[in-house]
This record gives sequence, structure tokens and C-alpha cells, in this order.
Amino acid sequence: MRHGTSSSTPRKVVSSHIQSNLESALSSRYNEVRGQSLALCAPLETEDYQVQPMADASPPKWHLAHVTWFFETFILRKYQRGYVPFHPAYEVLFNSYYNGVGEAYPRSNRGSLSRPTLEDVFEYRRYVDDHMQAFLNQELSAEMIFSVELGLNHEQQHQELILTDLKYNLGSNPLKPAYIDQPYAPGPESGALTWSAYEGGLIETGNNGDAGFVFDNETPVHKSYLEAFELADRTVTNREFLAFIEDDGYSRSELWLSDGWAHLNGLQEKRWQAPLYWRELEGKRLEYTLTGERQLNESAPVCHVSGYEADAYARWAGARLPTEEEWEHAASGEQAVGNFVENRIFHPVAEKPDESIGLFGNVWEWTSSSYSPYPAFVPFAGQLGEYNGKFMANQLVLKGGSCATPQSHIRASYRNFFYPPDRWQFTGIRLARSVTHQ
Amino acid sequence: MRHGTSSSTPRKVVSSHIQSNLESALSSRYNEVRGQSLALCAPLETEDYQVQPMADASPPKWHLAHVTWFFETFILRKYQRGYVPFHPAYEVLFNSYYNGVGEAYPRSNRGSLSRPTLEDVFEYRRYVDDHMQAFLNQELSAEMIFSVELGLNHEQQHQELILTDLKYNLGSNPLKPAYIDQPYAPGPESGALTWSAYEGGLIETGNNGDAGFVFDNETPVHKSYLEAFELADRTVTNREFLAFIEDDGYSRSELWLSDGWAHLNGLQEKRWQAPLYWRELEGKRLEYTLTGERQLNESAPVCHVSGYEADAYARWAGARLPTEEEWEHAASGEQAVGNFVENRIFHPVAEKPDESIGLFGNVWEWTSSSYSPYPAFVPFAGQLGEYNGKFMANQLVLKGGSCATPQSHIRASYRNFFYPPDRWQFTGIRLARSVTHQ
Amino acid sequence: MRHGTSSSTPRKVVSSHIQSNLESALSSRYNEVRGQSLALCAPLETEDYQVQPMADASPPKWHLAHVTWFFETFILRKYQRGYVPFHPAYEVLFNSYYNGVGEAYPRSNRGSLSRPTLEDVFEYRRYVDDHMQAFLNQELSAEMIFSVELGLNHEQQHQELILTDLKYNLGSNPLKPAYIDQPYAPGPESGALTWSAYEGGLIETGNNGDAGFVFDNETPVHKSYLEAFELADRTVTNREFLAFIEDDGYSRSELWLSDGWAHLNGLQEKRWQAPLYWRELEGKRLEYTLTGERQLNESAPVCHVSGYEADAYARWAGARLPTEEEWEHAASGEQAVGNFVENRIFHPVAEKPDESIGLFGNVWEWTSSSYSPYPAFVPFAGQLGEYNGKFMANQLVLKGGSCATPQSHIRASYRNFFYPPDRWQFTGIRLARSVTHQ
Amino acid sequence: MRHGTSSSTPRKVVSSHIQSNLESALSSRYNEVRGQSLALCAPLETEDYQVQPMADASPPKWHLAHVTWFFETFILRKYQRGYVPFHPAYEVLFNSYYNGVGEAYPRSNRGSLSRPTLEDVFEYRRYVDDHMQAFLNQELSAEMIFSVELGLNHEQQHQELILTDLKYNLGSNPLKPAYIDQPYAPGPESGALTWSAYEGGLIETGNNGDAGFVFDNETPVHKSYLEAFELADRTVTNREFLAFIEDDGYSRSELWLSDGWAHLNGLQEKRWQAPLYWRELEGKRLEYTLTGERQLNESAPVCHVSGYEADAYARWAGARLPTEEEWEHAASGEQAVGNFVENRIFHPVAEKPDESIGLFGNVWEWTSSSYSPYPAFVPFAGQLGEYNGKFMANQLVLKGGSCATPQSHIRASYRNFFYPPDRWQFTGIRLARSVTHQ
Repeated sequence: MRHGTSSSTPRKVVSSHIQSNLESALSSRYNEVRGQSLALCAPLETEDYQVQPMADASPPKWHLAHVTWFFETFILRKYQRGYVPFHPAYEVLFNSYYNGVGEAYPRSNRGSLSRPTLEDVFEYRRYVDDHMQAFLNQELSAEMIFSVELGLNHEQQHQELILTDLKYNLGSNPLKPAYIDQPYAPGPESGALTWSAYEGGLIETGNNGDAGFVFDNETPVHKSYLEAFELADRTVTNREFLAFIEDDGYSRSELWLSDGWAHLNGLQEKRWQAPLYWRELEGKRLEYTLTGERQLNESAPVCHVSGYEADAYARWAGARLPTEEEWEHAASGEQAVGNFVENRIFHPVAEKPDESIGLFGNVWEWTSSSYSPYPAFVPFAGQLGEYNGKFMANQLVLKGGSCATPQSHIRASYRNFFYPPDRWQFTGIRLARSVTHQ
Repeated sequence: MRHGTSSSTPRKVVSSHIQSNLESALSSRYNEVRGQSLALCAPLETEDYQVQPMADASPPKWHLAHVTWFFETFILRKYQRGYVPFHPAYEVLFNSYYNGVGEAYPRSNRGSLSRPTLEDVFEYRRYVDDHMQAFLNQELSAEMIFSVELGLNHEQQHQELILTDLKYNLGSNPLKPAYIDQPYAPGPESGALTWSAYEGGLIETGNNGDAGFVFDNETPVHKSYLEAFELADRTVTNREFLAFIEDDGYSRSELWLSDGWAHLNGLQEKRWQAPLYWRELEGKRLEYTLTGERQLNESAPVCHVSGYEADAYARWAGARLPTEEEWEHAASGEQAVGNFVENRIFHPVAEKPDESIGLFGNVWEWTSSSYSPYPAFVPFAGQLGEYNGKFMANQLVLKGGSCATPQSHIRASYRNFFYPPDRWQFTGIRLARSVTHQ
Repeated sequence: MRHGTSSSTPRKVVSSHIQSNLESALSSRYNEVRGQSLALCAPLETEDYQVQPMADASPPKWHLAHVTWFFETFILRKYQRGYVPFHPAYEVLFNSYYNGVGEAYPRSNRGSLSRPTLEDVFEYRRYVDDHMQAFLNQELSAEMIFSVELGLNHEQQHQELILTDLKYNLGSNPLKPAYIDQPYAPGPESGALTWSAYEGGLIETGNNGDAGFVFDNETPVHKSYLEAFELADRTVTNREFLAFIEDDGYSRSELWLSDGWAHLNGLQEKRWQAPLYWRELEGKRLEYTLTGERQLNESAPVCHVSGYEADAYARWAGARLPTEEEWEHAASGEQAVGNFVENRIFHPVAEKPDESIGLFGNVWEWTSSSYSPYPAFVPFAGQLGEYNGKFMANQLVLKGGSCATPQSHIRASYRNFFYPPDRWQFTGIRLARSVTHQ
Repeated sequence: MRHGTSSSTPRKVVSSHIQSNLESALSSRYNEVRGQSLALCAPLETEDYQVQPMADASPPKWHLAHVTWFFETFILRKYQRGYVPFHPAYEVLFNSYYNGVGEAYPRSNRGSLSRPTLEDVFEYRRYVDDHMQAFLNQELSAEMIFSVELGLNHEQQHQELILTDLKYNLGSNPLKPAYIDQPYAPGPESGALTWSAYEGGLIETGNNGDAGFVFDNETPVHKSYLEAFELADRTVTNREFLAFIEDDGYSRSELWLSDGWAHLNGLQEKRWQAPLYWRELEGKRLEYTLTGERQLNESAPVCHVSGYEADAYARWAGARLPTEEEWEHAASGEQAVGNFVENRIFHPVAEKPDESIGLFGNVWEWTSSSYSPYPAFVPFAGQLGEYNGKFMANQLVLKGGSCATPQSHIRASYRNFFYPPDRWQFTGIRLARSVTHQ
């Protein structure tokens, strides 16, 4: 074993037999995940890869290069003796935010880089893939295997971002082009809202990674005390959200957090009146989706709402958002099945009312919990410590994955995080309520 | 009893004998608290009452009028039949943020109102005080008593703000005028940092108000689970913070939350290099205090640091900020004694190293906890529901009170809250650390 | 003669007899002008002296100190041996924009300086006045006399600014307090608009200062060629401007300069719909004036319009704004009489239709001319070179003085200058048109 | 003749024989100009057509579509019966600023439109070209011919913008890609600066269009009076500008207009220290050009300086910028020859010191003249009135054309205009000075 790292991490030594199986599996998984990024981009025009209509929505070309940079930086440059980087400038150009690695090209200018061209980026991917395949054919330390796993999970996160950023790009284009042309099945009627009750008590959440890869922000397993609570059996529908709108929900300050109300009224362009991607045209409610603009499906989950809107809706509905512990506790016994990106629907679907509660897929669910470190949280070692920990301020935790998330990427302990005003992700609302004994 | 409110709140009926004692006590306390606001302003020039050097730092004149408006709006206009408001325009001019009451004059323009003059505002205070005294001489419902108590606690909060806003006003004036001229005793040397250990387990925090007035955000008492932890026996000193500065703490991105780093580097004026009110002059470290600018007392607690700086310092020191539950648990058995505004020192003093831990007074202590509702939190009823609840986003909880806080105002369950970048309050740092059993 | 400056400026030597008369006259004029600044402020409350509701509208206290600083800096510190400045910090605090003198306190923060107090500033004025009187009792060089004259003209400019800045302060206060309580005579009806024709040809404008003090920006006399043109015999009235409003003048982009249209639509607060200080209340058009808010006098000149509004109105009316050469040529034979500050009306009055054209007083008249140097322009020498020259970019020239201008301050060659969006000065519109021979 | 427009403009009737020659010539010229736009873009990658690194620098794809929209909107839709627009959304998408035509897609978002693709835009061009060729084969009224000429001149303006915007795109890319790879001949040494004297007097400038197409802003011919002046025989060189830099030119406030100084110090990113596209690398002065980054050619004209820098340099050099009348008067007898885009050098070249003064080509020369209407100026009729007139505020006139200007597009009377802070055009400095007789 190279670099002698095994001696310093003795408890993770694996026999070389298992190891070579592991590596072969890793090599397959590497190809699969990397291929999936390109497959998702297949319907795009060259120009679609280039644009960045807001600072948050990076160009697909940048995503494809950045995830490649991740393997180059944290694996090939670190572990592969004699590796020659593809291009000296890429270290800065495709660094997202790792100050420990060095300077990063300004985020908001990513869409202004016409060079390297898309072809250059494809070549970059091939170059790194070739070197990674050679790397994966060697005997790997546990640290190396972990780094590859992290790189793949990282690429999956960007696969979701490619779709959401692309949706923002195409959806804000007056031509409203579809990402992909295909029919959309409206699905069943959403029934009346029902609730499931949970007893509370001293519970455990978090994940120590015993069953596979986890991010540092999910660790360690830890105890919390929950009061009894109830969780809605499905997420809020468009129909329900329309009732909030029609009840002047966007104009009643008493429903809003103060920062939310200020955000709503301080927007440069125009005041929010509805979720992102909705518009009224000739008396009809339309919604832009990745399969084009079409009439709003009232039974489908409301989507592309900010944390502020989610909170205001919940208050209007006489409920509240769940905490992340409540959500994770409820989800802990559940299979992570649902409407994920593999369905290739690229939009939330109506939830079947007669089925048991399904917390996964469709839309990310806002919680009321700030994104904070768990007790005794330790970030990843070294430069990778910047992956998650430094973002633990001013953001909220979201749970469950969406129609743009790869299924193998999600689990009950997974913590996504966005700022309360953000709404370009597939974000929706699941209500919770406290049980008051009177 | 007027208005018949007692019948709707039967469990709070009090006998009329106790009642009249209560009212007499309330009347005294009213006079005392109202008088304290004026006493704090006694050293000011007319011009000092007027200015607002940043949006957050309201003019003392506005504070004096706004707390009066609070009594007028929530008591006299609501309960006192036939009450004629002092001036029709004041309803808007001195409304801080109660959308339920109506429009509010824009916060950032408060310093631009030369009229009403200070004399007008004094007259306004006398007018409302006269009516309040008449009001307090009646038999009062529990709801009325509560509203008066709230008004007094509200005025105490503004007493602290008068001092901190004034400090910002005078401290940013190149003439560096003192609020009050008096000597400052440097106090004892701060010794080495020692720690107290807490076992953790299932604990209770929050306050149901059984022992007296509490704000809605402190309710209800609720359970949490804490891992074992340690709390520093004193807050971080200026000497210790200087070591952070000299170790390039303000230049090392790995110590900072991402939002903190961005804030630091995005400041319009100049990048933070030290706590607010510090400057170097001819090789000396000076600190502006309410008693004038003088050489930095290295043994005193570091003060006027933002939540971001507190967090970065803690990371540099190999520790972390406490959660609000940890802090409150540690403080629960403690008397709320310490360096409060009644001391008339108006600045934190060095903590005696041989004394038992004192968590109260001196400086507000940043916690890592987001300001969120407690489980089953219910805001105050009606318009007063805007008092606290709507601010539960993007802010952090601070505990313990400061040298500018009235002692009778503070308790272990008290939750103050500011945004992570704020630093014009008397805010300092108490370290915590997790106990890891290996 | 001290300092021997007379020998270096031989052409300005004056006999010592005339000199002492001059100095005596100068001393009187000094007292008169300085006294006038205080007289204008007499109706103010202490608080009114303090506030700065926008960066452009400096507090009267600052104005009173700054004009004093001007005498201290450019006369006493320069010419008076042994002069001890009143306070070392004032050099920076009351420097407006003279980089050659040193640092200047930021303009937008002037209203935040509660110290020095108003009393301190009055003392500062007395201190400098005492030293100036001693200075003026000496034999003075031409350069010294010029500097005193400049200081007095400078103070007159600030007298006008005190009134306009104060109007902005009081006028943006919801209480709409009057600067001074007095009746306002509506004046005669404005008749139909008539025009005076001018032949054009090779003309001379500018002023070499042969008849008394002039600013450097008025020099030198120079030739221009004018085509024949016509000038309106009076300025545009409120009645006429109302017709522009009612004809959707503020909503028709074709009437506006592109920058004006962008300004109109990009305003943070609210889009302009009328001149500054107008509002509609219960169906009535009201106008705030220094004597209080009252019904709009439709016969009076429209006032407080920006250069963009003036230009748009002129285009709507089928006319244009005059060039500064046209205006000055027309005014060259005229007496500078009109409604000036000495009238103590503090507002423009309706112009008598049967009288000969009066170009002076009432309102500053926007020209279409950029504020640029005249051919062979030479700025004042030394630090005073910053007085005018450095502002010759992006501003327009205004002519004629207003109801807030001291009469002795104005002349045909006088060039005032403001940015096209500015409208807090007493600015109005005089139309011009080209004569086209067909 | 169709539409009978000839009868309403009788004085411009042309015989049908001349007419058909005219139309044939117009048709050729149409093809030539339209082809030139594509030829200039030939070296680009698809991605280069797409990006907009700042609001001012529109993507080449947008330019190619907008100039096509111009023909579609002002010719085909107006004059060609039955014309069916290529795409209904393009009317808004490719409208630059013609409010009279309707809404325009926001300028700063042009780079965010990935659709229509480049191929779509090429197809749009072909569609409009086909219809234009059919249109040009008809008998055309004078108004129609004028509109076509305007469209071609408009397209030439955008050819220059394609190059300057592209230079900004590629030049701000850390990879510093060349637009075109070719050697650059440094040219001769620039000799000492010599001057030519002009007598002044009553002169004429402007252009009535008797010799061919002119823009409305060049009309009418009108008289001005000029004092005697001198004009430098060549523009300022990089070597001379380096001396300004080394003499702390960027740090001495006394050299700068107040607005320029504020702009310099208020820049978000970094303070100007040199012209745009310069940088120091390992002790060398480099300059980015359209043929790549290379060592600064000190003999070549300084380029990419703002009007503020030009003004400051002139003041430092003891000179000033010329007025537009001085410049045009000096150029009036001269041939418009020089280094234009047809040279395909794409960068200014050193001027031969022994040659007679050459005012054209190489760099646009800042004048001190505000962009204002000439006496009796009348804008183009109808919607085209927005072409030039509405920009006559806050901008300065530039003269002479640059290395990116088509030669047939320029003449002595041509008025280009940019804001004083702009520097992404090929803008340089020619000094002037007044002649003072003593």
C-alpha cells in the first residue's frame, strides 16, 4: 500500500482481496456517475452550457469542469505521483470556494468565461477520467477510497444543480424553451390532508457512516428530546398554496417573519406574488417546468418556494414547519424511495393519498432548523474541511431529496441547506404541528 | 372590574386587596423605570438626543418617544376610555415595527426628524405619564397588569439601547467625547483560563413565568438532551483576543464561517482588523468607552465583537461557542449578579479569577444557537405578537446581560438576539467545549 | 504692508488712503454678511441645526461652522502671524472638499456629529470673527482683500444652501413644520406666455471682474456666435406644468432624455409624479413652502424641478431650454432686480405679465449648457483652485438666482451648477426656441 | 412608386434611371456591410458569441440579431406589404432601446439568453437578408433609401462594438485568449510632441448631409467662434502616459475632476492604476490586445483610458482636451485616412512623427465637449428620433474613429459619445492648448 497511510488509520485496513473487489466496484461506479453527468446534459445546446442568469445559477459547463477539478485536486494531485495537471489555470478557474487550495475565480463571473470552450472541458474530463481509471486500478488506502467516494457524491450534488440552474436559465428566457420535450402525467388527485402522530421522547438522529458514505455534517449520531408532534402525510399542493395566495397571503405582514417581509418588499425587480416559475397569462395559471411551460397542476406539490414563503404558508395554515430532528425521526424507518431523477420526470408529481407517508423525493422539504453543527461535530480533515462546515450560518436545513436528486445520493440523515430567500431549487413544504394536551 | 376581562381569564383573578397592593407597587415601579430613562440621558446635550449615525443606532430622542408610544398604544388607547392621543402623527412616527398597529416611519430616517423637538418629546412623556398614573390608580385586570409590566420591560430594553446607540454616536465622532467623565478602575489581572464541567443529560430550559414576568420567547419550559460539556469560567479577555489578532486571525479564512469571511471582505468602508471602538494611535492600542477613549485594558473582557468574530476566535482557540441550552443549564442555579448598569461603570470590568463562575453582566455572550421558537411556542396575543416572534430568523441568541443592562431585567432564561455581523452591543465571548471520551 | 505681497501684484496696488476706506468698508460688509447667516437661522430650533435628511442637504450647524473654517483656513492661518486655530480637529471636520488642505470628514456623515454642539459652533464663529476684525484693521494686500471678498461670497452661497437644505429637512418631515410663519400673497394672475426675440450674431459673455468680485468660473470674457433665438418673457408656471402632468408627461418616454427616463424609473423610493414638495391630499394639490404647506398657487413659477424634468417639459411644450450664452446675452443689459432673499418671502411669486422681462430672482433657471471651462479659463491660484474648476463635469449651468439668493450675490455672468437629477434647489424653467426662417 | 411617399417629399424625387442605379449600388453595399459583420466574427467560437462580462459589453450574438432587427423593424415591417416577422418574440428580445417600438429586453441580461442559439440567429439573418434583397429590387422612395443607409451605418457602428465588447470579454478572461493570432509590428518610434497652431475666429462645423449620409446629431452646419489654439500633432503615447503614472498621477487629487476622483476611489473592485488591459507581471508591463497579451509598445498611442483619465493626464501635462469644434475645425480639410478596421491590425499603431498631422483612425479622441444638440437640431422623424437625441446628457463627444472603425463610416463631423468613466472603447488622448498673448 502506497504512502503508508494504512498504518495511521489501522482500524480501516481491509484485506487486499476485498480491496480489489472494492476498487473494481468503485471503478464501475466512477464510470456510472461520471457518465450520468454527461447524459443529463445531452439535450443541451452549446449556448445552454454557457450562461449564468444569476450568481447562484452556475453554467453547466462550469459544473462539468468543477467536478472534474475536484478529482484532479483532491485525488490525482495529492495521491498520483507524477500527475501533470491538464491546464495550469484551471486550478483557479474551477475552484469553487476552497480557500485552502488557493484563489478561486469569482462565482458571479463564471458565465463570462467563453474559454475554455465546451470542447475543451470535455477534453479535460476525458484526461482526468483516463488518469482516474489508472488510479483506481491500483491498491487504494481507505483514505483514497473515501476521497473517491466523496468525489462521486460531490458530482451527484452538482448533477442536481445542473438541472436546477438550467431550469433557472431556460425558465427566465422569454422563449420558455423546454429542457426536454416529453408529456407530463398529471397524476392522481391529491386528497384531503391527513396527519401522522409521533410520540416524541429521547431520540437519536445523525449518522456515523457505518452503512456507507456520509458527509461530515451528518455526524455524529446524537440524542435529542422531542415533544409529541404530528407530520402531514403529504406535502402542500399547488391547490392549497393557491388558497393562501387568494387569501392575500403575500400581502398580510402578520403571516411573515420580519426578514421575509423585508425581503419581499425590498426586491429590486418585482415583489413575489407566487412561487418562482408561475405566471398568469390570459387568465390561466401557468408553470414553467423542465418539460416546458404548461397549465398548473393543482394536485402536484407546490414547488420553488423560499423558506420565508414556506414559513408564512405554515403560519397561515395554523401549523408550522418541522424541525430537522422531527423530520429525520419520522423518516428513520423508511426506505428512500420516491420520485427521483432516475424517473426522468424532472418535476414533482401528485402524491397518492391512499399510500403511506412518503418523505423522500419530489421536493426538498424546508425545516425550521438552522444549519448548525451537531454536538461534537468534526469537519473532514485538511482542505476538505471547507466542504460543509463553513456554511453553518444563516441557512436552513432541507430534507428528503427532490425529483432532481439521484436516488443513491439520499438518506434520512442527509442535510441539504439553503438560505431562507432561495427558491430556485425544487423546494416545497411539509407541515408539522405540536400536540397540545388540554 | 372594567371591561369584564376578568371573566374571560378566570385563572388569573386576584383578590382586590392584593390587587390594590399590586397596583401601588406597579405605580412605583412605573415611576422608577420611567425616571431611569431620563436619568440615563441626563448627561446629554440636546444634539446628542438627535443623531443616528447608522440605521441600527436610533437617536435617544426617538427611544424616549417610542417607549412612551408603547404605553399610549397598548394601554391608554386600548383600555382607557376617552383617552385623547397626544398628537395624531405620533402613532406613525414612533411606531417601531408593529404592522398590526399601522404604518411605521422608516427606521433609517429617525435621525432626520428635527421635529418634534426634545422639549416636545418631554412634554409627550409627561402627558402619557399623567394618564398612566390615573390608569394605574384603577382596578386592573390581569391582562392590563401584564401589559404595563411588558411596557416597563420594553422600556428597560430601550434603556440599554440608548446607551449602546449613544456609544456608537459618540464613539464614531472624531472628537471622541465621553458620555460621562469618570475614572475607570482597571480591576484585577485576569488569570489563566479554567473550565467547569457539566454532565449533560436530559435537562430543562425555558421559563413559564411562574416567578414573574417573562417574554413569550422564553416560554414554555421544555426538555433538551445535552452531551457532557465544559464552559470557561470567564469570558475571553482583550489580552487573549490580541493574541488572535497577532496570529493573523483576521486574515486566515480557515478560521471563519463563509458568510463571516464574505462580510469581512465585502465591507464598504474598511475591513475589520479588531473589535469595534479599538484603534491604534502612535503605537498604542486605544479603546473608546462611554467614559472616553483610553488605553486598552488587556485584562477586561473583549467586547463589541460580532458573532462571526466570536465564532472565529473560538475556532482559533480550539473551542467553540456554547449552545443556548448549555449556557442556560449552567446558569440555572445562579444568581443574576454582576456588572450591570446600576454599577454606573458603563464598561465591562476584569473578572476576578478566584471567584466562582459568574455568567451574568459585563458582556452579552454569543451562543451558537439560532434564535428559534421553543417547541409549542405561542407568541403574545394580538398586535403584541409582533414583539418577538417575527424576528426568529437569521439571528443568534445571546445570554447573560451586559454592563448596560438593568439588573432587574435579566434572568437565566432571557434570550437576547442579534444578527451575526452586529457588534455595536456590549457583546463578548465565552468559550465552550465538548468532552470527548477516548 | 505685511508679507510684501503687494510688490508681486503691482498692478493692483492701491493708495493707503483708499485702502483704509476699502478696509473699513470690508469690515462693515464682513459684519453684515456674517450677521445675515445668523439672522437667517434665528427661527430654528437646536434640533433643526443638526439634521441631514440626505447627503446633499447639510445641517445648518455644519454650514455655520464650514463658512467660518473658510476664513480660518484661507485667511487667518495663511496671513495672520501667530494665529492659533480654535480647535485642532476642526480643520478636518469642517473641510468640505479641499483635498489640498487635507482630509475632509465624509459629507454624508455631517448630520451624525452631535459634537461640537451648536453652542460650540457659535463660540467658534465669535472667535474667528474677533480675529478677522483684528485682521481687517490692518493694511491689506490685494490678495488678502480678494480672499476676504471670496470668503464673503462663499458665505452668501451657503446662506442660500442653509435655506434649501432646511427646506428639505422640514419638508420631508411628516409634521410639515414651517420655517417661519407668515402669510403668502398669491400675487397676480400669470398671463399668456409671450416671447422676446434676439438677433444673435457674435456676442460676448463672461466677466473679467472689472466691476467687482467675480468667481473664476465666470472668467474670462469671450466671444460666442449665437443664431437668432427667442426667450420666454416669464418662467413656466405651476398651471402650465400641471398641464404637462395631466398630459401624462411623466409617463411618456419620448419626452425624456434617456438618462432622465432611467433615473425616473430607477428611483429606490417612489417614481417622480410631480415636482418635489407637491402632494395630493383629499383631492387638493398642496405644496410645501418655507412658510408651511398650502394649496398650490397655479400662477407662481414651477419650482423644484430637476434638469431632466425641465428638459422634458420644454420638449413637450415644443420649445427647448436656453443655452447659458443665450440667457446671459439676454440678461446682459438688465438690472439684477427681482424676488431675492431680502424680500423675506422665501418662495417664488407670480410674475407680472405686463412688465418687461425679468430674468433675475424667483427661481434658478436651468440651461442646456454643461458646466465647462470658458476658453482660456484659469482657476484661482493654490488651494482655492478647487473652489469651482474641479466640478466641471456632468453638471448643468443655472442662471439668475432665486428667492433664496442674496441680491448682492448675483449678476448676469454668475454660473450656478447642479446635476441634472437635482431638485432640492429653487429651480425652475424658462423656455427658449430657435428662430427658423423658412 | 409604392406607397406614394414621393409625393409628400417632392424635393427629394430622383429620376427612375438614377434611382435604379442607386438601388443596385445599395444592394451591393447592403451585401458588403452585412457580410463584413459575419467576417469579423469568423474567428469566434460559439461560446464567444454568447457572453456579456459587463452590462455595456453585449454578446456578439445579440449584436448580430439586433442589427437584423433594425432592418426588420424600420424597413420590412414598415414598408414591405405582407412581411411576416421571423419570430414574434424577437421584436422585444432584440430591441435595444426604442421605447417607441415597444418593450425592450433588459440590456444587462442579454448574455443570459442561451436561446435563440447562434444557428437560429444566423437563420434570422438569412431570412431578413432574403427579404431585404427583394425589397431593394423595387423602386424606392427617398425615405426608404435613407432608412436602408441608416441601417447600414447602424450595422457598422455595431461592427465596432462587436470588436470592443469581444475585447472586453476575452481580455477579462484569465486565459487571455487572442481574437486572432497574428504578429504585431511595433511601428516607428514616436518622436517629441510637436504642435500645430490654428487661428480661430468665426468657423463652421456640422454637416448638412450634402455629400452623403450623416446622422441627425451632426446637423445642421452652424457657426462658432474659436479663440486661437494649438493641437498636438499626434496622440499621447504609452511612454508619455507611463510618465504620468510614475509621477503618481493616479494618486494626486489636484489633477482630477471631482467626479473622476470619486469614481476612481469608489470603484467596487480595484482602483484604477493604469489604462484598462494593462497589467504588470514579473516586472514587465503587459497589454492585452485582440492579437493576444504582449509587452506594452511604448511608442503606440495610449488607449482604453476614460474621459476622466484623459482630462487628468492633460492637466498634468499642462494642456487640456480640445473642444469638439476645435477638433472638427482642424480636421475639416483632412482626408479620413488612417488605421481603421480594414487594416486588420485591431490595435492602434505608433504614429509616424515626420508625417503631417493625422486626426483619423487609431484611437477615438476624447474632447472636453458635452454631447449636446447643435443649434436648431432636429432629430430623425418618428421612432428613429430615439437614435441619437435622447442620449444628449452626461456624455462627452469623441472624434476621429479608431482601429476598430470601418473607414467608410467616419468623417470630420462624426460625433461619437461615451460617459466620462467609460474605457472599454479604443479611446485615447489628443492634447490641445490655448494660445495666450502676453
